[in-house]
Amino acid sequence: MINQTNVQLGRKRSNIRELFEYGKKRKAEIGEDNVFDFSIGNPSVPAPAEVETALKEIIQTYDPVALHGYTSAQGDFSVRKTLAEYINSRFGTSLNADCLYLTCGAAASLTITLNALLNVGDEVITVAPYFPEYKVFTAHAGGKLVAVESNDGTFQLDLNKVKAALSDKTKAVLINSPNNPSGVVYRESDIKKLAQLLENHYAETGVRVYLISDEPYRELVFDKDTVVPYVMNYYAHSIVCYSYSKSLSLPGERIGYIAVNNQMQEFSEVYAGICGAGRALGFVCAPNLFQQLIGKVYNKTSDISIYKANRDRLYSALTEYGYTVVKPDGAFYLFVKALEADAKTFSERAKKYELLVVAGDDFGCEGYVRISYCVAPDMIERALPAFKALAESYK
Amino acid sequence: MINQTNVQLGRKRSNIRELFEYGKKRKAEIGEDNVFDFSIGNPSVPAPAEVETALKEIIQTYDPVALHGYTSAQGDFSVRKTLAEYINSRFGTSLNADCLYLTCGAAASLTITLNALLNVGDEVITVAPYFPEYKVFTAHAGGKLVAVESNDGTFQLDLNKVKAALSDKTKAVLINSPNNPSGVVYRESDIKKLAQLLENHYAETGVRVYLISDEPYRELVFDKDTVVPYVMNYYAHSIVCYSYSKSLSLPGERIGYIAVNNQMQEFSEVYAGICGAGRALGFVCAPNLFQQLIGKVYNKTSDISIYKANRDRLYSALTEYGYTVVKPDGAFYLFVKALEADAKTFSERAKKYELLVVAGDDFGCEGYVRISYCVAPDMIERALPAFKALAESYK
Repeated sequence: MINQTNVQLGRKRSNIRELFEYGKKRKAEIGEDNVFDFSIGNPSVPAPAEVETALKEIIQTYDPVALHGYTSAQGDFSVRKTLAEYINSRFGTSLNADCLYLTCGAAASLTITLNALLNVGDEVITVAPYFPEYKVFTAHAGGKLVAVESNDGTFQLDLNKVKAALSDKTKAVLINSPNNPSGVVYRESDIKKLAQLLENHYAETGVRVYLISDEPYRELVFDKDTVVPYVMNYYAHSIVCYSYSKSLSLPGERIGYIAVNNQMQEFSEVYAGICGAGRALGFVCAPNLFQQLIGKVYNKTSDISIYKANRDRLYSALTEYGYTVVKPDGAFYLFVKALEADAKTFSERAKKYELLVVAGDDFGCEGYVRISYCVAPDMIERALPAFKALAESYK
Repeated sequence: MINQTNVQLGRKRSNIRELFEYGKKRKAEIGEDNVFDFSIGNPSVPAPAEVETALKEIIQTYDPVALHGYTSAQGDFSVRKTLAEYINSRFGTSLNADCLYLTCGAAASLTITLNALLNVGDEVITVAPYFPEYKVFTAHAGGKLVAVESNDGTFQLDLNKVKAALSDKTKAVLINSPNNPSGVVYRESDIKKLAQLLENHYAETGVRVYLISDEPYRELVFDKDTVVPYVMNYYAHSIVCYSYSKSLSLPGERIGYIAVNNQMQEFSEVYAGICGAGRALGFVCAPNLFQQLIGKVYNKTSDISIYKANRDRLYSALTEYGYTVVKPDGAFYLFVKALEADAKTFSERAKKYELLVVAGDDFGCEGYVRISYCVAPDMIERALPAFKALAESYK
């Protein structure tokens, strides 16, 4: 008998993938333009022009043996140095190259961090709605994901619920802001309170809880006054898991990093754990060409004005049709209240209008659907009458 | 307390890395040309010209959103189809695209395969000398690596020893041919016997043992009459873990694949387990640009004539000086008998002659040192007097 946990994981497609595959089939049946597919969080905006220019320049000018050769497991030193200095300049931290560990994207950042921290039986608290793979990643690392609800109606942190979930087994709190699927950015005042809560927990119980901040959507915020707090400025025992997948529209190239806050007492132990976990999981090093690329375009972002326009158009139209939606601060998702109690039934009914929206159950939040608006603006225009008709069908 | 297994893994550098770092320091002290560094298995020959051409063409002509976007977790379908057909044309197999799973290189191929197969407490048999990370990868998957000796003096498979190690707990046999560190290619007759042994074991005990073939050095064989047997042709329950790191000199770019033999009865379960393990470990997909690259240059190989010349020069010189060496069929390593019982002491003494050679203990084989000859030919010429003097110091 081989490992049945992984067999089941491989057999059971996520609801998101299931719906996406249905959409492909449906498009073949009734035409590409007649299906309104809001299922997948795949950037629809190309990488900034600087990416192509830099890739060509690197391939043309670098020594190929060095360019395509191994870097150290942590990643190329000079790239890490560049990124550490950039983070310091933006957030006032004092990181150095050896606080960073380059990874094959956000998923790798998370699995490596969780495997570094967790012992069997440890708990990781996260806040619903949350990215469904958190459960898979935590389980593989031997732990248990404990999801707590967010504030009803706002999806902001509910610190009483986090407090109630803390125990002797808690090893980490894992947050994601801007949030997939709600688009909400957690408020600075709540991050401060969260940090205080974890400090108090340590003072009272001696249990150290790490704060893991999963930040693939950090650069995707649409309003000038929206600030995504940098957790390292509020909590010494914090680790940032970053990815360039969304900010540079490079999700298939697998490049990101882990940044460990050097203000934490046991920094060298945590960083060593990360190096060890990366080794045990088989990562070796992040793809070298993309390491070098990031060293050149670390401060660039894809043109997110299309996402902003999509958000504004969808938000105002859906609100007008009678849907309940929290206006997202960032990312490229709307988390919309289903018009009946069971979001899966609602999602099925939406299919009759050729609308593909993902039921929120897998995100730990019943009664909601996720709309990924990283799509072509004209599809949104074509989809609006369907959203309207769907709403009217409930009246 | 965070996970101490991974902390220790992160803290303890491998002997190879340790020696490599020493070499860098020593070169700074006495000059680059005066240190003879044979520590690391990093390809010294550039990628074939077709790699640069194809990379440029892909970046220039592909739609950037698709090129840098997610592929399916298994990898781009058309690339997998191309590779399956190429494997079929070379080895007479009848694989299809859905037998392949593209990975971030050989380490990922191995960790994903081991996590797919193993339950806690399962054993994996390997043959010494073996790549030291096998132990780390097996342990992370919950298993135990059981190393058996090879035939003394030839490093070929000792099937009696493999047979003696088989038990109810055995889930897989893991072989590596051409072998790191011995350079030996396992004989076809022995692969046949190994297959028969595993079939007999199943018939007698009902325990199914998978054969995992780790093949990053497959293309690095130097003599026309050396054939590396393709395990799928001898054993239904076989899985090939492949990487382009050495064949195309792309070790830092992390691209390879797992091929599951579709002749095995429980094929769909094993393939699902691989998909699930890849997901749980956080791999998402192999870097898309390099997937596309491989789809174009799958049948190219770096110029290995330099490795062959290095092998011939070193082999004949060391033999002449009185060293005992098995002539390697492939890869780019020589595994040389130390001139005293303790290889670590020998390796330390070699340092006095500025020769950096790795003690074989970590490879599960005491009394030998590994010489990586993926180096510049002129360094070998400069190193030969040192090898000679070292040998004479023992007379």
